[in-house]
Amino acid sequence: MKNFADRLIEEIRNKESYVVCGLDPIWESIPEGVKVRFKSKGAAIFAFNKAIIDAIHDVVVCVKPQLAYYEQYGINGLIAFKATVEYARKKGLLVIADGKRNDIGSTSLAYAKAYLSKGDASDLAFDCDALTVNPYLGWNGIQPFVEMCKQNSKGIFILVKTSNPSSGELQDLIVEGGRTIYEKVAELVDKWGSDLVGDSGYSSVGAVVGATYPEQAERIRKIIPRSIILVPGYGAQGGNAKSVVVNFNDDGLGAVVNASRSILYAYKSDRWSGAYDEDAYADAARAEAVYMRDEINMELEKRQK
Amino acid sequence: MKNFADRLIEEIRNKESYVVCGLDPIWESIPEGVKVRFKSKGAAIFAFNKAIIDAIHDVVVCVKPQLAYYEQYGINGLIAFKATVEYARKKGLLVIADGKRNDIGSTSLAYAKAYLSKGDASDLAFDCDALTVNPYLGWNGIQPFVEMCKQNSKGIFILVKTSNPSSGELQDLIVEGGRTIYEKVAELVDKWGSDLVGDSGYSSVGAVVGATYPEQAERIRKIIPRSIILVPGYGAQGGNAKSVVVNFNDDGLGAVVNASRSILYAYKSDRWSGAYDEDAYADAARAEAVYMRDEINMELEKRQK
Repeated sequence: MKNFADRLIEEIRNKESYVVCGLDPIWESIPEGVKVRFKSKGAAIFAFNKAIIDAIHDVVVCVKPQLAYYEQYGINGLIAFKATVEYARKKGLLVIADGKRNDIGSTSLAYAKAYLSKGDASDLAFDCDALTVNPYLGWNGIQPFVEMCKQNSKGIFILVKTSNPSSGELQDLIVEGGRTIYEKVAELVDKWGSDLVGDSGYSSVGAVVGATYPEQAERIRKIIPRSIILVPGYGAQGGNAKSVVVNFNDDGLGAVVNASRSILYAYKSDRWSGAYDEDAYADAARAEAVYMRDEINMELEKRQK
Repeated sequence: MKNFADRLIEEIRNKESYVVCGLDPIWESIPEGVKVRFKSKGAAIFAFNKAIIDAIHDVVVCVKPQLAYYEQYGINGLIAFKATVEYARKKGLLVIADGKRNDIGSTSLAYAKAYLSKGDASDLAFDCDALTVNPYLGWNGIQPFVEMCKQNSKGIFILVKTSNPSSGELQDLIVEGGRTIYEKVAELVDKWGSDLVGDSGYSSVGAVVGATYPEQAERIRKIIPRSIILVPGYGAQGGNAKSVVVNFNDDGLGAVVNASRSILYAYKSDRWSGAYDEDAYADAARAEAVYMRDEINMELEKRQK
């Protein structure tokens, strides 16, 4: 199978879209009409996700289920996670498991098996296309993921600069030599991903850089020219098309942009609540995904000129 | 209910033990005699854990199931995780979920619900006593855990200096002011935990400091006098009783020491394989846990003199 980065870029080209839809089920925001049809929360969550996937699968390149939102519902939540991953892949979507996993080597290997492999015959693992990982433990914590990426044509996205307000508390500290921690991590990402550069010129070892920090993103983009940047923080967290374009290279590639709540719960938003009622939540999600796709494409075209 | 730190210290005093047993199921190391009794890996793993818990519950203060080792077996693995947590708590053990979770605030809240609460009536969460967490996202990523600890009398252990060989790659970088990253994180741990100090004088916000770095541990101990340090890396990773005592305060408290493989698979070890055959794996685990408990107690007594 093709290298993950190459597959992702092929999807971007085919769909003319850089949009990733985060699948973060929030019980309170799932329409009543879905909830009443099921006894278990897990089943309702999967039904909600399935309708969203059906509505947006040709508009977005990846979905990114956030594991925390499934783990909070225990085993039922994780059954919904697994079903969602399988359904999304069947619909031709790449799946990024957002777990920000990390540990010492032997344990990272277990996480890599869990999310980036099929597992063995008797107990199937979650088998996503990519996983987000945390760099705090250094190379030992990353290497097993990189090996698994090589073996199974998978990808990882390493946290570099996160989208939250306090991300600077550690990430912006300045270390000897005058660079910040997030710049040091970016240097490591470039090094760690050098063996996984595909035909596209991009590596399957990507980075996470929040849409809420465009200045920092500009610096990071230069340090990791071959990494695909997963940009969270668009929409509900305050990022917009203007703030994300700095994450792209001059070739118009090198980034994908995630929105979760602004797509999933578009039916409740100022922009769409007039046009779609609660039962049409999937149509509202599609409208928002199309809007976001076009807004980013337009902003990128402006920059190319 | 009592503050988590107070409960942990009460257990340490009652049992005269600082030992935490990591429950990291490695399929290849589980005795054949256990495996053949079950169709599903999950069931076999739970049976193995149950026998270990029965054998050691009066010798150790906590068990620490490492989530990666369950997630790698998919849903069945997580069912075994949940059953293990419930059984261990029924046997009076405190359970530390080792997940090293972290994310932006809203997502950290979902993780906090998953591991530090009962969840709601229809979908029970995993409801452990404590969780290990990663500090890379700063206060936003930690606060929801701290709030949940207050609400539900739970604890967290924040990664400060991890036990793996490459932990220094980021953690030892020197920042402005001449301190290392791990020292900066230790300062934050002290601050973040200040609201959760119990009657014992210890906080329910603890730290993870690897047994493989005693020099660094000495510095960390001074920065976080009120935090309980969870010390991994004893046994299979090379730490020993001498290298862990620096994690304790002069009051003989302030740390618990984890071993996983050296207890679980003691039946295969140089020390115990002559005395116990494979079927007696639980007895071998108990022997090793007692040995470890006494070794640490002796080393601490030596220091007190």
